[in-house]
Amino acid sequence: MSLTEQIVERAMAAGRAAAREIGVPMNIAVLDAAAHIKSFVRMDGALLGSIDIALGKARTAALFGMNSEAVGEFCKPGGSSPGLELTNGTLVIFAGGVPIRDGTGALLGAIGVSGGAVAQDALVAQAAAAAAQSKA
Amino acid sequence: MSLTEQIVERAMAAGRAAAREIGVPMNIAVLDAAAHIKSFVRMDGALLGSIDIALGKARTAALFGMNSEAVGEFCKPGGSSPGLELTNGTLVIFAGGVPIRDGTGALLGAIGVSGGAVAQDALVAQAAAAAAQSKA
Amino acid sequence: MSLTEQIVERAMAAGRAAAREIGVPMNIAVLDAAAHIKSFVRMDGALLGSIDIALGKARTAALFGMNSEAVGEFCKPGGSSPGLELTNGTLVIFAGGVPIRDGTGALLGAIGVSGGAVAQDALVAQAAAAAAQSKA
Amino acid sequence: MSLTEQIVERAMAAGRAAAREIGVPMNIAVLDAAAHIKSFVRMDGALLGSIDIALGKARTAALFGMNSEAVGEFCKPGGSSPGLELTNGTLVIFAGGVPIRDGTGALLGAIGVSGGAVAQDALVAQAAAAAAQSKA
Repeated sequence: MSLTEQIVERAMAAGRAAAREIGVPMNIAVLDAAAHIKSFVRMDGALLGSIDIALGKARTAALFGMNSEAVGEFCKPGGSSPGLELTNGTLVIFAGGVPIRDGTGALLGAIGVSGGAVAQDALVAQAAAAAAQSKA
Repeated sequence: MSLTEQIVERAMAAGRAAAREIGVPMNIAVLDAAAHIKSFVRMDGALLGSIDIALGKARTAALFGMNSEAVGEFCKPGGSSPGLELTNGTLVIFAGGVPIRDGTGALLGAIGVSGGAVAQDALVAQAAAAAAQSKA
Repeated sequence: MSLTEQIVERAMAAGRAAAREIGVPMNIAVLDAAAHIKSFVRMDGALLGSIDIALGKARTAALFGMNSEAVGEFCKPGGSSPGLELTNGTLVIFAGGVPIRDGTGALLGAIGVSGGAVAQDALVAQAAAAAAQSKA
Repeated sequence: MSLTEQIVERAMAAGRAAAREIGVPMNIAVLDAAAHIKSFVRMDGALLGSIDIALGKARTAALFGMNSEAVGEFCKPGGSSPGLELTNGTLVIFAGGVPIRDGTGALLGAIGVSGGAVAQDALVAQAAAAAAQSKA
């Protein structure tokens, strides 16, 4: 199973709806399991500085198959992997990057969201990922 | 006037429809007039190597306010600006990058398409740009 | 409303005057709202290492629409966004980057200053931004 | 003798006046003899894609102590140094980059201009360099 346009459109529609519901324009990136871009949307009014962050969160989640903030656990003070965030051309290690998996748990790709407070970004990313996985 | 989500969705829908009509999956990038990404779609089956080309064509068209191949005229053998394609972190100077303008002629952004033969890329980019401008 | 040469010259004159008043030669960068350079001056004797810092502070303030040190609040220890300073090709997250806004609050661009102590940089950046906004 | 603010302001004023006279908004960059930026102005309406070209022309002229198009002679077909334009992080090898020298012929820096046709860029760069050297 792969990350089809159909799945991505479902994710994008859900992400944008969740962003509108909380009134925060977001940058939303969807990458495949190889971390190549599949789709991107910058909603009207979303911060320019958040483009790169959305892409980075999605890349981090795709490369490690886990939420971006879970990658952050390894490199926080006292963690096992100091400086991990400097690898892979730098990672983004706070919340808002979420893997997309199919019904068997296989990794299809990842979503990254940025534009609001971190908790808002994470909420929108989870809504998008849930929609992607609803029939994936 | 600026490049809104609404304009971009119209462009993307027209671009994807044109690509499907000729049976060639495409990468389609839409940037604003300052060359920041606004939207991107990689259709199912589109070449990975064409992601960067689509983005580069759109960036070239946005930065110079003309079709990507028109920028290429300046740097072809005997042209006025040899090596122009090496500036701005490298440009993409063959067809498939098209500016989007509003009714007054002001630059709103640019579309870049890659995935097929160059003539196919250009056809899809023009269809997308025409749809963007239809009510812009 | 956009960031015109006239506004920028007013900002540059005020920034240079403020720098001379405290006797510290500065690098002063002015970017537009999309973070493209509009003007730059390195005063005689200003540190070479501060060129990139001035540009980085202005870019940080433009991309996020806030003072560079306010961006730093998000990534300081215990902040919501650890490693944020690594995004966008690295940010500069200490004081001296200040947004320029018009009378309606819309972002026109940003000023970045570096060459002295951080408090001196901030003072000069604020003087330049105030002059830019005086009739903007 | 070094490239002072005073010299640079004279060059910038002359360059901008020459650009206004021909009605073409230009990007004008001034670098010192070590190729570090000293001053930059993007005139209202100047092409975004020409920012990097103006900087590249000035860098090329400063690094080699000759006009940018003279560097191009070495790497044109049949020249002695094919691929020279790929060195130094890429050079810009068409006209519009001009060295600034003092009365003894010592290199003080270089000016790079881009935004119009190549001949227009060269004309403005020469006007700026002549003004810089008038009392240098």
